[in-house]
Amino acid sequence: MTQPLPPAGDLGPFFAPKSVAILGASSDPDKIGGVPVAMLKRAGFAGPIYPVNPSQPVIQGLPAYAAVGDIPGTIDIAILALPAKMARAGIEACLAKGARGIVMFTAGLGEVSEEGKALQRALASLCRHNGARLLGPNSLGLFSPYEGVFLTFSASLQHTWPRKGGIGIASQSGAVGSFCYAMLHDRGLGISRFIATGNEADIDVAACIDWMAGDPATTVIVAYIEGAQDGPALRTALLKARRSGKPVIVLKVGNTEAGAAAVASHTGSLAGSATAYEAIFAEAGACQARSIGELADMTEAAATGVKPRGNRLAVITPSGGVGVMLADQAVDLGLEMSPLPEEAQKEILSLIPFANPVNPVDTTAQVVNDMSLLPRIHDIMVEQGGYDIVITFLVHMGRNAAIMDLLVPRFAEMRRRHPGTVFIVSTFTTPDSRLRLQQAGFLVFDEPSQALRVAAGMRHLWRAPAADVATAPEARLALPAGPVDEAAATAALAAQGLPFPPSGLARSAREAADMATAIGFPVALKVVSPDIQHKSDVGGVRLGLRGPAEVEAAWHEMMCTVAERQPEAAITGALVTRMVTGGVETVIGAYRDPVFGPIMMFGLGGIFIEVFKDVVFRPAPLDRAGALEMIGAVKAADMLTRGIRGRAAVDIAALADALVRVSQVAAANAGWLESIEINPFMALPEGGFAVDALVLAGADTPL
Amino acid sequence: MTQPLPPAGDLGPFFAPKSVAILGASSDPDKIGGVPVAMLKRAGFAGPIYPVNPSQPVIQGLPAYAAVGDIPGTIDIAILALPAKMARAGIEACLAKGARGIVMFTAGLGEVSEEGKALQRALASLCRHNGARLLGPNSLGLFSPYEGVFLTFSASLQHTWPRKGGIGIASQSGAVGSFCYAMLHDRGLGISRFIATGNEADIDVAACIDWMAGDPATTVIVAYIEGAQDGPALRTALLKARRSGKPVIVLKVGNTEAGAAAVASHTGSLAGSATAYEAIFAEAGACQARSIGELADMTEAAATGVKPRGNRLAVITPSGGVGVMLADQAVDLGLEMSPLPEEAQKEILSLIPFANPVNPVDTTAQVVNDMSLLPRIHDIMVEQGGYDIVITFLVHMGRNAAIMDLLVPRFAEMRRRHPGTVFIVSTFTTPDSRLRLQQAGFLVFDEPSQALRVAAGMRHLWRAPAADVATAPEARLALPAGPVDEAAATAALAAQGLPFPPSGLARSAREAADMATAIGFPVALKVVSPDIQHKSDVGGVRLGLRGPAEVEAAWHEMMCTVAERQPEAAITGALVTRMVTGGVETVIGAYRDPVFGPIMMFGLGGIFIEVFKDVVFRPAPLDRAGALEMIGAVKAADMLTRGIRGRAAVDIAALADALVRVSQVAAANAGWLESIEINPFMALPEGGFAVDALVLAGADTPL
Repeated sequence: MTQPLPPAGDLGPFFAPKSVAILGASSDPDKIGGVPVAMLKRAGFAGPIYPVNPSQPVIQGLPAYAAVGDIPGTIDIAILALPAKMARAGIEACLAKGARGIVMFTAGLGEVSEEGKALQRALASLCRHNGARLLGPNSLGLFSPYEGVFLTFSASLQHTWPRKGGIGIASQSGAVGSFCYAMLHDRGLGISRFIATGNEADIDVAACIDWMAGDPATTVIVAYIEGAQDGPALRTALLKARRSGKPVIVLKVGNTEAGAAAVASHTGSLAGSATAYEAIFAEAGACQARSIGELADMTEAAATGVKPRGNRLAVITPSGGVGVMLADQAVDLGLEMSPLPEEAQKEILSLIPFANPVNPVDTTAQVVNDMSLLPRIHDIMVEQGGYDIVITFLVHMGRNAAIMDLLVPRFAEMRRRHPGTVFIVSTFTTPDSRLRLQQAGFLVFDEPSQALRVAAGMRHLWRAPAADVATAPEARLALPAGPVDEAAATAALAAQGLPFPPSGLARSAREAADMATAIGFPVALKVVSPDIQHKSDVGGVRLGLRGPAEVEAAWHEMMCTVAERQPEAAITGALVTRMVTGGVETVIGAYRDPVFGPIMMFGLGGIFIEVFKDVVFRPAPLDRAGALEMIGAVKAADMLTRGIRGRAAVDIAALADALVRVSQVAAANAGWLESIEINPFMALPEGGFAVDALVLAGADTPL
Repeated sequence: MTQPLPPAGDLGPFFAPKSVAILGASSDPDKIGGVPVAMLKRAGFAGPIYPVNPSQPVIQGLPAYAAVGDIPGTIDIAILALPAKMARAGIEACLAKGARGIVMFTAGLGEVSEEGKALQRALASLCRHNGARLLGPNSLGLFSPYEGVFLTFSASLQHTWPRKGGIGIASQSGAVGSFCYAMLHDRGLGISRFIATGNEADIDVAACIDWMAGDPATTVIVAYIEGAQDGPALRTALLKARRSGKPVIVLKVGNTEAGAAAVASHTGSLAGSATAYEAIFAEAGACQARSIGELADMTEAAATGVKPRGNRLAVITPSGGVGVMLADQAVDLGLEMSPLPEEAQKEILSLIPFANPVNPVDTTAQVVNDMSLLPRIHDIMVEQGGYDIVITFLVHMGRNAAIMDLLVPRFAEMRRRHPGTVFIVSTFTTPDSRLRLQQAGFLVFDEPSQALRVAAGMRHLWRAPAADVATAPEARLALPAGPVDEAAATAALAAQGLPFPPSGLARSAREAADMATAIGFPVALKVVSPDIQHKSDVGGVRLGLRGPAEVEAAWHEMMCTVAERQPEAAITGALVTRMVTGGVETVIGAYRDPVFGPIMMFGLGGIFIEVFKDVVFRPAPLDRAGALEMIGAVKAADMLTRGIRGRAAVDIAALADALVRVSQVAAANAGWLESIEINPFMALPEGGFAVDALVLAGADTPL
């Protein structure tokens, strides 16, 4: 339906325009068409500013033009502060004057109606065909303090004039982006770029991330996404940003359910668009925030540029209680609080006899009387304890200017002695003392538990991206036409190398008994029907059958129950399968996300899968390293790799092989495959077996 | 060892002293002995203030006394700002002058050494024998703005002079208590009482909660606890507070492991002192905070006094993205976001044609242009949607004084029209606009997700306490002397009415086979030995045996394995038990907490118990209502009560009966019983069975 657009130009001109025209410019500096004029002037923008307004010859002290055509020479970037119905003419005029970028404030298009969607698509196409890019419509615009570029109507900037810094913000929502910007500004942080993409008729958040990945002014990338226009482009941009060494912190909202067909499997009921995003963020090593506050916290941490070497935490506090509280929470957050070496403990006790010197170090209130004590204790802990992160609780000291005057210079010196260590201070602050502590190289949070959460989250900031995106070998699933029953799914997956226990498809009770005798007891009997996806729901499974007579009896009983509960189901027969016991039930799934393509799921199986939802998602295909990473990411990873309570560890290599193979099948058949679910994959101390397989084909099944 | 103290006097005099003496008073208003003099003066304390200092005749403009004996008349409350070695003489002198209370700032006692512990015990005893109470030592003191009582050396109060309000704070730690106080003060909240109990030689947090429960000035109680001196007193105080209708928000830090013996069971490994506190907080309906920030947030919510009628949430936002984000998170937090009735949606669309009127209601930025719109939308949502809680996101409007001037009076009116609804605003604020919104009856948080967490937490603020504390009937466990093996545990618990499947103790393979034939197949075989607690760890369990020959073979194989893995274990024989299948494995446990006595545990059993830790704790004994509440509190409650995926719901009544019975046994045998664990208790669609029982006796076992 939609025509592909011509190749996209670079976003560079938006942040370094040679000239700016404002269509719909206003004399009122608080009006949507007046704000950018006022801001460009205030920022001392170096190039010409061309207000366009048919009724006013002068706008905010600048000569204004009645029409775009009246502007002398070319226009580089144009702002559209015009009603929707005037947009096309405005853009055409600007393109005729050589514009390379249009910033479209105009609302009331794609966010409101189908007509609006069509119009914004047409405008984007118009721009691209003329070698220009379109930001918006319904965009809050963009700004950068480096070039004095303020192509925005964000009124809040008047109160929060940006500092220069390394944080680049790309947000689909102007409100969320500017809220996050204001939080960061309140914390004394500086930014490189702010860009709100609005309706994303052309430029989307992925394009902004991609551009910032190569932007020397940007060292940390913050993204807010409601829904990606182009999944693969977002994936590529995230990987590019992380490979260029820039942390990416991303807040994704919205979780629409996957297609109705896929929901028939556990994989489908647990999957939604949110899980696909989770998968690509994990692959790229992007840090996923769950709220705007967490987005700001993790951005502040990333902006320090100090990457913790490990997860060893030291806590220094004049309050024993806060130390205990943080120690409790640190364990839950995966941080390690090992005790200080004994020599170092003695040294601390020689400074403060009543201290508790283990870790957390309780300094007692003594540190308030001698400002040399705190820096010395930090030195001892970092040098002799080798901690990666130090959290220091200073109670109210941050509100006491006299204490800050004495402490901050000593802290700054101490900080310089340990450039590789992350230092976080928790104290009530004033804006001034907060800034002083930050400038001295400390992360500052009022609340001690918030400081701890940030410390724990910092590992995720610097997660390495996947070394290479795995490629899938040819692995075409051979399936009969029509709905896929378990026997067909098993045969097709077994042909791809998935390990299944010995089994056969029986058409009668007698055949089942003979087959069971040949396979070896105990066996399971499972009804086969293309119409039945959850066999146990209709009584279609019999387990632990120990002899031919038992098999025959179970067959008859099972077929009666199934016929009663689902009389319309066509019954092919029953699978006779050798029972597998003594392992851990896991689930291996794959499904096709409409935006990102094939996604893998792995987790613990059994009846609790939907209660505890201990599953993780990654893009398919996986290589072996990716499969092992995935296994390690579930909560029950320790149980799998180390065993618990006399239960042996499982064969992780065999489990990883199965994951890799399913992921390759999912990738190679992505065009038509809706989902695969192996539930359970029984992970054994040696090897493992796919005990049950479900394959759902999409509408466009081959054959 | 420790002598019991005489009955305790009331805490009233501390908060309404007729006179105050300060031993160790200082002329320097910033010194520990000078702060209370300065504060009492500043607060206009009505009674006489007696500074005591041997070397200065005048202290901060007040006549000072060289010795306590020189003070004319009696002393009501005395502050001790003296070194530890002068403490006894000082207290004796004050008691001789009729003091009813001593506030002991003095540090370096029980928190430092055993000698200090002994001294503070002696001082507490001295006070109590003279009809007085002792606060501290190592206490930051107490204050109350109502009577101008400032018996504290908290320096931060100079910057945060308290407003009068209903919040009472009782904190074991002065640092945490005053940090929390400062957070609340920053949010414009007022307090009734602040008391820091320090080393708790006499007055503990429980005593403070108990007193505040009856204090008319206090409407909300905040408590910070490191470790309770008297578990039952804390339990009683919490129940008293909640029964008097006051929400209690409590932060408990520290989780020491339970005794080593108990750790041998799952119950023990999951229990720690934190779980016992969790149990008594849940019973009393106290709201447990996990950080100081959460403590402040929930206190702020409680201080509104508005109790949400239910969990139906409305969200109003000019940013679609924030609405989607909150809707996602609301579901996870247990809030319900039902759509607005269609008529009401139409009404909203008639006000704002481009709005999304469902819920969340996206108002678009249109609301900034007409300040009458937001109140009208609130009215429509509350009146026609019947929501219990409304969260309104105002982006930056809180920083815009002109907007606040227009909006706040309209909001205040609207608020008065809906007194039963909780209103929460999320916006960037200035301190001034924050206060104005609060005074208009709104809860105010900058960050929208924080607003949502508070909304979700408010249900816990007003949880009802247990109607009555259950009492245990006589249920004495009859056990043989010495360690308790499974056979003995099973027999003793069965005698108390716990349902066990048919079973018998066999001494030989042949006996086991005969017994199995009598009981009916399939059976399980489980080794019985007082030396083996985790039978499966040593290969001491064989399941699903279907005939006498299988039983005999399994016996021999099992005994060989056990002998190999634990050769020193004395083997009594093996239990032959009828297999129970088709149910859900749950675990019912009881253990003795050293502070609170017998505590019950309930949760899902099976191999995942330690991975997912889906267990809850409550004090024993339970009545039926308590048992049902406990079952409903696990994450898997829905699976138990409604069933999932074709698996039937379980017999909740039978499960509750078993919980009640175990709790009664635990309570009736609390003197000597270390722990009971039934794992699994197989919950069936009809009835249920205790499949495995473990009883651990303490050192003081009877017999």
